[in-house]
Amino acid sequence: MPIRLSTLFFRSLREDPVEAEVDSHKLLVRASYIRRAAPGIYSWLPLGLMVLEKIETIVREEMARAGAQEVHFPALLPKEPYEETGRWEEYGDNIFRLQDRKKADYLLAPTHEEVFTLLVKDLYSSYKDLPLQLYQIQTKYRDEARPRAGLLRGREFIMKDAYSFDIDDAGLEISYQAQRDAYERVFSRLGLEYVICAADAGAMGGSKSEEFLAPSEIGEDTFVRSKAGFAANVEAVRFVPSAKIDASKVPPAEVHDSPNTPTISTLVDFANENVSRHLGGDFTAADTLKNVVLKLISPDGKSRLVVVGLPGDREVDQKRAEAWFGVDVEQATQEDFEKHPGLVKGYIGPTKNGKQFLGVEAESKIEYLLDPRVAEGSHWVTGANEDQKHVFNLVYGRDFNSDGIADIANIAAGDPAPDGSGELELARGIEIGHVFQLGRKYADALGLKVLDEYGKLVTVTMGSYGIGVTRIMAVLAEENHDEKGLIWPESVSPADIHVLAAGKDEQVFAVAEKISAELEENGKTVLVDDRPKLSPGVKFADAELIGIPKILIVGKGLAEGEVEIWDRVTNIRQAVKVESAVEQLLS
Amino acid sequence: MPIRLSTLFFRSLREDPVEAEVDSHKLLVRASYIRRAAPGIYSWLPLGLMVLEKIETIVREEMARAGAQEVHFPALLPKEPYEETGRWEEYGDNIFRLQDRKKADYLLAPTHEEVFTLLVKDLYSSYKDLPLQLYQIQTKYRDEARPRAGLLRGREFIMKDAYSFDIDDAGLEISYQAQRDAYERVFSRLGLEYVICAADAGAMGGSKSEEFLAPSEIGEDTFVRSKAGFAANVEAVRFVPSAKIDASKVPPAEVHDSPNTPTISTLVDFANENVSRHLGGDFTAADTLKNVVLKLISPDGKSRLVVVGLPGDREVDQKRAEAWFGVDVEQATQEDFEKHPGLVKGYIGPTKNGKQFLGVEAESKIEYLLDPRVAEGSHWVTGANEDQKHVFNLVYGRDFNSDGIADIANIAAGDPAPDGSGELELARGIEIGHVFQLGRKYADALGLKVLDEYGKLVTVTMGSYGIGVTRIMAVLAEENHDEKGLIWPESVSPADIHVLAAGKDEQVFAVAEKISAELEENGKTVLVDDRPKLSPGVKFADAELIGIPKILIVGKGLAEGEVEIWDRVTNIRQAVKVESAVEQLLS
Repeated sequence: MPIRLSTLFFRSLREDPVEAEVDSHKLLVRASYIRRAAPGIYSWLPLGLMVLEKIETIVREEMARAGAQEVHFPALLPKEPYEETGRWEEYGDNIFRLQDRKKADYLLAPTHEEVFTLLVKDLYSSYKDLPLQLYQIQTKYRDEARPRAGLLRGREFIMKDAYSFDIDDAGLEISYQAQRDAYERVFSRLGLEYVICAADAGAMGGSKSEEFLAPSEIGEDTFVRSKAGFAANVEAVRFVPSAKIDASKVPPAEVHDSPNTPTISTLVDFANENVSRHLGGDFTAADTLKNVVLKLISPDGKSRLVVVGLPGDREVDQKRAEAWFGVDVEQATQEDFEKHPGLVKGYIGPTKNGKQFLGVEAESKIEYLLDPRVAEGSHWVTGANEDQKHVFNLVYGRDFNSDGIADIANIAAGDPAPDGSGELELARGIEIGHVFQLGRKYADALGLKVLDEYGKLVTVTMGSYGIGVTRIMAVLAEENHDEKGLIWPESVSPADIHVLAAGKDEQVFAVAEKISAELEENGKTVLVDDRPKLSPGVKFADAELIGIPKILIVGKGLAEGEVEIWDRVTNIRQAVKVESAVEQLLS
Repeated sequence: MPIRLSTLFFRSLREDPVEAEVDSHKLLVRASYIRRAAPGIYSWLPLGLMVLEKIETIVREEMARAGAQEVHFPALLPKEPYEETGRWEEYGDNIFRLQDRKKADYLLAPTHEEVFTLLVKDLYSSYKDLPLQLYQIQTKYRDEARPRAGLLRGREFIMKDAYSFDIDDAGLEISYQAQRDAYERVFSRLGLEYVICAADAGAMGGSKSEEFLAPSEIGEDTFVRSKAGFAANVEAVRFVPSAKIDASKVPPAEVHDSPNTPTISTLVDFANENVSRHLGGDFTAADTLKNVVLKLISPDGKSRLVVVGLPGDREVDQKRAEAWFGVDVEQATQEDFEKHPGLVKGYIGPTKNGKQFLGVEAESKIEYLLDPRVAEGSHWVTGANEDQKHVFNLVYGRDFNSDGIADIANIAAGDPAPDGSGELELARGIEIGHVFQLGRKYADALGLKVLDEYGKLVTVTMGSYGIGVTRIMAVLAEENHDEKGLIWPESVSPADIHVLAAGKDEQVFAVAEKISAELEENGKTVLVDDRPKLSPGVKFADAELIGIPKILIVGKGLAEGEVEIWDRVTNIRQAVKVESAVEQLLS
């Protein structure tokens, strides 16, 4: 049976909804796919549900091919398992918490590692039961601070989350690859452009992690890529420390009075006016070593200071810093400086009076880390730890040392890729999938062990794999639309063909019905605009808005025995004989 | 591809889970269909999900046939719509409430009348848009005081809820009938025994309501039925007031001292020892008029007293009383009696000193209602409103009056059906579906109006229709099992045929695989027990537990070219030639 616009629960809107910021959101609401129920929470209308179901079917088919079995967990879960892994606390304000009538604590689960782990522990006990891959397609919850962009960042959303269970790392690698391959198949079948980015695995306590990003101007994730194929989330880019440089020709370090130069630009101006550069030419910000005081804050609220030295033309990237340190990172406050009077704001440097000052074993006792670009043998203009003084020609390895590396500087377009594959470009993307080697973190915390072939208890190693199902629908809409409306890829279109009866003549409706029936008999799904007493203009506009990629217009050409096939992608309309319309549409 | 027990996420349990009270719960857990995640909250294992999906498919097909369109609403909803209809308060402790990070109030919806009403209001505005039927299959929440019996009374469960929208009552009647017919088809296809019971519509503010009950000893709902076809929820049984009786031969009312007779049985004993019955024979409890003082408590906490007179052989049925009055009902407390010293406990009656005492316009000012069995002209032994005194031969209509009827007495087996269809029997059942004419309650509260054909705004009339999807699975398990395990109806069995490789011989496994493949090629779904190194006994026990109704055993008969077909329903095993096994199983 075709979908009939005369009875479909559908009402097109000519105006964009006021709260919508991005095109996918505007069009999905205007074309009656979704409606907002609360901030970040949506109701699904019939058309929306049809597209969603097609996406879910593709995901299910590829999960089955990967060998994963479908299960389904509750959304409402007790606190205890999440307390055992520490996530009840870690999530902070980001989850919905509630109590039942007996004052027991519950949460609306944002992800299900804990309960999957416990279920496998409940059922399985031997290496013979492994490997195992389980998945669910399920409604998840996150109390986002700023729900935005419609389905792109919601508070109630649908995810496919899969988990793998293996006896050893080699098994995990195979399971991980099986899921990763399945993701490639899913996104290809959906016609989604995607980039696989190396991702930072630290925060989740695992080892290896990759994100599938759909490149998009409105994406919240920044990633870098080179033409030759390198791609990584900015948090995951790791630069190789620069090779040692010969410093034998660098003059001795020299302290200069440098009044009123607390910033890099005032320092560079001062240097160019007052100091001669031993290599010739002008000083630039890249000649200076900026020393940034950061506060690292653990989940338990405890904090400590660290100083990071990086070239003066770089900034600390907050996300990269938090990924590197694995904790929250803030700039040191006035109060922090007051507790460490040795740190002279604007004039901080690794040495003081010719001796190492920064470092856990130096005078300050504050850990001192360097950007990997700071090569051994490189020389710098940097603070002298005295008010209004800087030191010049200070050589790393000769005049000062560090406690290690901190790869937390911002990445700029044109930087070399860490794998030598050329210049990096910066791009924005939307995370649509994530594959992750969790390792033994959850199995350890929750005691998931099995007997190995020698009868010894071993901890299971796990992977977790997510696809944002509702988000994908928004990304598809974002990637496939024009100013008139949506243009769905065939794989997810609510119907294969939109048959449009344009006119008042009974004959028009009769032919539209006949062709619809024939198409359906031939296995095509049809949406027929059989609304009486509606102008062709309104019907054309609705067809463009709804976005089924192939439209058949039965209209005034019927007098000459013709109908029109309208390709929504190319926007070409082509008149064909009524008798051959079905054949053309099937081909 | 057949389902393989060698890899299926499955582990059978030989012992009943400790928390399980009913057979369906025990067997669904033991056979790895579900696992408990928290009280009244379950995880779904692969087998469970397969059965659930089959139930959902049948529901979807019949909803489509009824003309209903599928949508999907959030589970997490803001308070406001539920506040407008008063249900935010009415639900009391029975719903899960929570706040988001901005302290806005939300609930986990137990049912969705409000948001369906608002969505239709958002999209539609004309009588031309109606009639409309929408439904969803969705996860719902209820903070049950006593979650019990596995899936039968859960706190997170799946419902199909449908809503109809019509311009007038005649339309509502048609939509209601369409849903009711769809329910009959759903339950028939599921092979579920059911009774359609008239239900009380009052509490939901609507007009007409019927419940679909699956008769079951473990059901929580009591219903009554007659052999000739009457069936009703006890709350919904309404007796016709008894016809007037000739009282001309009844002697005048007479007050007797009746010391120490505060109960019906002491009163009957006293009467038989001290008073002569003018009709001859012995007094029984049915000759006495018991006057029960009840406290009616409104949702806002206000309360008032009412006295109900009913034959002394009847009790007040709490559920019937609450359905009748539409508010909470309690027995009057000592404190209530102290506030009304005119009410002499144990000796209450409609008259005092020959004058009407109970009634809104009588001395007590307390409303006085009578059981419909109390016919005009009937005479009674009842309290005289004086300590240790009763009055005899008090005739309704001659000696006392009432303010109306209260049909709240318990129903006893053998009572005549109100429609004259014979004696009633009492039975227990599990509610599996509910169809309900809501009328204009929600449309009024939330302002759902459309323009009629004359351009006048009219309020839409609605119906609501629910099926407990997860509960149905439990009922099916309850109705279809024996002491060995489940025996699914074909319509919902996780597979059509269970192929069991019993033996260690490679040939056994090869034949099992070959037959499985052939069955699948012929459109049958197969679960194959291909577990190596497992004894036939264990495999037989698991097959019985899992409950696929047809089992094919490939075992030692193979030497003679034979396999066995085992009908789990009749428990008959029949040897057939290997070559004809597939044909037999397909027939």
